[in-house]
Amino acid sequence: MAKDKKARVDDLRELLRVAPGRQVDLAAYDARATPAGPQKKAAGREAIAAMGAELAHLQERLYAASTAGDRRRLLLVLQGIDTSGKGGTVKHVIGLFNPSGCRIRAFKQPTDEERKHHFLWRIRKELPEAGEIGIFDRSHYEDVLIVRVHELVPKDVWSGRYDEINRFEQSLADDGVTVVKCFLHISKDKQHERLLARLDNPDKYWKFNPGDIEERQHWDDYQAAYAEVLSRCSTPQAPWYVIPADRKWYRNWAVSRLLLEQLRELDPRYPEADFDVAACRERLLAERS
Amino acid sequence: MAKDKKARVDDLRELLRVAPGRQVDLAAYDARATPAGPQKKAAGREAIAAMGAELAHLQERLYAASTAGDRRRLLLVLQGIDTSGKGGTVKHVIGLFNPSGCRIRAFKQPTDEERKHHFLWRIRKELPEAGEIGIFDRSHYEDVLIVRVHELVPKDVWSGRYDEINRFEQSLADDGVTVVKCFLHISKDKQHERLLARLDNPDKYWKFNPGDIEERQHWDDYQAAYAEVLSRCSTPQAPWYVIPADRKWYRNWAVSRLLLEQLRELDPRYPEADFDVAACRERLLAERS
Repeated sequence: MAKDKKARVDDLRELLRVAPGRQVDLAAYDARATPAGPQKKAAGREAIAAMGAELAHLQERLYAASTAGDRRRLLLVLQGIDTSGKGGTVKHVIGLFNPSGCRIRAFKQPTDEERKHHFLWRIRKELPEAGEIGIFDRSHYEDVLIVRVHELVPKDVWSGRYDEINRFEQSLADDGVTVVKCFLHISKDKQHERLLARLDNPDKYWKFNPGDIEERQHWDDYQAAYAEVLSRCSTPQAPWYVIPADRKWYRNWAVSRLLLEQLRELDPRYPEADFDVAACRERLLAERS
Repeated sequence: MAKDKKARVDDLRELLRVAPGRQVDLAAYDARATPAGPQKKAAGREAIAAMGAELAHLQERLYAASTAGDRRRLLLVLQGIDTSGKGGTVKHVIGLFNPSGCRIRAFKQPTDEERKHHFLWRIRKELPEAGEIGIFDRSHYEDVLIVRVHELVPKDVWSGRYDEINRFEQSLADDGVTVVKCFLHISKDKQHERLLARLDNPDKYWKFNPGDIEERQHWDDYQAAYAEVLSRCSTPQAPWYVIPADRKWYRNWAVSRLLLEQLRELDPRYPEADFDVAACRERLLAERS
């Protein structure tokens, strides 16, 4: 009976959202959890496929609405430690959408030019336009994650960024951007397993970076840095969701489901005709007579 | 027997390519043709789905190779008159790839800023990076198509652009860009049918522009402008392919198949490890002991 109850999903956002102001301790989050929805891989994959048509349809309506002046768009922010599955999420979840309405950007180590600017400079340039779904694989949060863990800037600089980020995201919300931030939460053991798997398959060597092993020495620092991000930057206008990501199928299902709930709430509409439909039809039909 | 022979595909590129230097008369091309491959919609859709895994795999290898310095990338240029299906091709063909490796750009009427620059300025900014698949929905060819038909610039300006474009595309080829240019060829009757269909469905009003009816008055001028493009700009380094596009499923199959053949020929490889695999594995395993 407990299982049946668990499998029902009314509002996954409510379930996975970090309540604004809440102090997060990541140790309390089980990365293998399946707190709602499908409980097995096969069912999860089926449920993802079943969402595909509705997701694509909602995306088309969002885009169509923009042609008539609706400024709304959606921005999915993916964060998580190496091997948490940011790339896999883009492939499997964003792959459900029409690629022409998606604006995907992976933020890597900043270039020399980017370093000369404010940390939000490169972010602002890549925001989705009206009607689009933007996807950030890493984001401005790197500037309070790796930058904090490795002290790439002094503490008095990075510590001011949480508030700056909240103000920035408020300004996005004011401008019609629905911001959905997903932290892909994996366990230290799962990362170990995935790194080893990359070394076991020559087709995956290109995904491996020996620096990833060193980064594991900073595991606790990263967890603390993520906890601070989740505690300070989950706001009503731009909430953080903690996605249990040890199971890839569950991660994909959960992110798909969050996007579905969000797009349903936006409920974009095909615009009315701004021309005389009957007259146009007549003109076209007149060609034949 | 003729049918069996037709259904075999060895090299669709050879079949659909405009031979460099050939004088094209579009009236000689049947927009409903199915010159090779599947002959029915159901078979066509199956054949497209069957290509998906290999296309995605080749794309991953192209991207992986770029992480080790391989500069190669692919650029798909889609051109065709209104309703020829450029958007549908992106949705159904590019939808087979991992969206994170695709850089899609639709070129609309130039902005004021774009107009101040050379016609290739906005094009250069949107080229795919190493390892990516770039997709242009319309392109620099608009500057010898709509610009020519409506005399938006004097003839002595646009008439010099064919050679300019050939030099530009040669420079792309020199830089590792494989340029695949597809002209989506539809009949005037098919356009009529598709425009009417947009007026019959309120969910499609947003795709309709009354100006499309006026543009039909220039049908012959556009056909002549396309014929000139195909005659003058199909080069060994950047050939044009004429895609029979009255049947959507055939159009999608043909473009998918061209990309497959091209990617197979590029044959990108996963890079070798540039680190000591055994040592890394040992270090990871040592964590556990």
